[in-house]
Amino acid sequence: MDASERNALIEAAFAMADAARFVITPYFRKPGLSADNKLQDGFDPVTEADRAAELAMRDVLAKMRPDDGIWGEEFGQSAGKNGLTWVLDPIDGTRGFISGTPTWGVLIAVSDDTGPIFGIVDQPYIQERFVGGFGHAYVQGPFGRQELATRQTTSLSDAILFTTFPEVGSPEEGAGFRAVSDKVKLTRYGMDCYAYALIAAGQVDLVIEAGLNAYDIQGPIAVIEAAGGVVTNWQGGPAHQGGRVLAAANAQIHAMALEILKTY
Amino acid sequence: MDASERNALIEAAFAMADAARFVITPYFRKPGLSADNKLQDGFDPVTEADRAAELAMRDVLAKMRPDDGIWGEEFGQSAGKNGLTWVLDPIDGTRGFISGTPTWGVLIAVSDDTGPIFGIVDQPYIQERFVGGFGHAYVQGPFGRQELATRQTTSLSDAILFTTFPEVGSPEEGAGFRAVSDKVKLTRYGMDCYAYALIAAGQVDLVIEAGLNAYDIQGPIAVIEAAGGVVTNWQGGPAHQGGRVLAAANAQIHAMALEILKTY
Repeated sequence: MDASERNALIEAAFAMADAARFVITPYFRKPGLSADNKLQDGFDPVTEADRAAELAMRDVLAKMRPDDGIWGEEFGQSAGKNGLTWVLDPIDGTRGFISGTPTWGVLIAVSDDTGPIFGIVDQPYIQERFVGGFGHAYVQGPFGRQELATRQTTSLSDAILFTTFPEVGSPEEGAGFRAVSDKVKLTRYGMDCYAYALIAAGQVDLVIEAGLNAYDIQGPIAVIEAAGGVVTNWQGGPAHQGGRVLAAANAQIHAMALEILKTY
Repeated sequence: MDASERNALIEAAFAMADAARFVITPYFRKPGLSADNKLQDGFDPVTEADRAAELAMRDVLAKMRPDDGIWGEEFGQSAGKNGLTWVLDPIDGTRGFISGTPTWGVLIAVSDDTGPIFGIVDQPYIQERFVGGFGHAYVQGPFGRQELATRQTTSLSDAILFTTFPEVGSPEEGAGFRAVSDKVKLTRYGMDCYAYALIAAGQVDLVIEAGLNAYDIQGPIAVIEAAGGVVTNWQGGPAHQGGRVLAAANAQIHAMALEILKTY
């Protein structure tokens, strides 16, 4: 892929992130936000903002990248003509969103048949955008533009681990998480996709989750890998289809966590 | 207390919050942040930022409020001459701070013998300041200045509950928390003092914690009460000395949670 093609993808991704920010921001922290139950038996709210933001991002693609495929959380998949697919989660962390926490994000990735090659994790309330791919990783936010680089932690006893909720997933998945958690310095919860951004920013070492969809993880994969981190499933294989995910600051700490998780 | 005295207190509180922001911000998300262990047997990091910020706030008081008492997390208590005491936590949520999450805060309260009468919860990275007391509650942040008002949720099955870590405290305290958690719509973790600000902002309904110090809760009490909420201990008594805390959006939801917690 040549530089002009890469730049066209970056430009489209930023236009989509800008459009999503514009659409979502008026809904955040507004009283009486509607939260439909997408699943009959669970609490999985989808707000108007979620749907409107995906439509706004699709509008950008229709104008700027009409030949690319799309896989969005809200409106499903459509095939492209060139092997590139945009994988979109307009509001990742809807429970955080309806609670007012600035932990949700707009997730954008563009993938080829190897997985995500460029991605964005955007937090509209903080006005903070984590960007990674094509050999660069940086954040644009309250401190201006800063390069992203993961930590070099090499022992679990020095590591900070995140996941969003303590159950993690099935009982077996919860047990796998706790087996790692028992060995780390600090375990924290509740940060949604923002935890992945913190790996890229060199603030934390591990994020372990389960039950993810492709659109929950492709944006984070692009950003973390560009910042020097490693993201796989719990068997060490590709994570870009979702499922059980292990994101790590570097190959050494990744191997130590994987050694534990792969037995679950 | 007349208006000019109230204004002098507000002015001092803002000067302290500004000073703390100025001191702390350069330390946040910096590589190699030192994190001493304050407790031999636990993970309770105190950063240079924590100490430097309390000193900066004490400097403000020495100049603007020399007759007031001080109770700070880092440098202890000193008596005043007029019955007013400033209760200060320069960085509440040091574990969040060293993890890079924007969930920690600068907590400032001024108290008389009845408890806190004015307070601030400040989040320097987001540049968001929650203020409450003397009949006003508002936030100044990314959306400008907005009035704060708590939610009117009247059933636990509609409520959103926060605490910082799943264990909460002792096994008994954890059981009390879970007895409430089992009845609510959504339980979330990991937000440190920011969870209290979200009650004041009308985003969540309950925060339940244990093992708090006075300086962890007096700022939040002032902000939440000014926004219409209720904060007590688990027996329904005053919470401004810390310990087991129940913060609620309104008297009804407070009573429902208290009914459960008071048996623990």
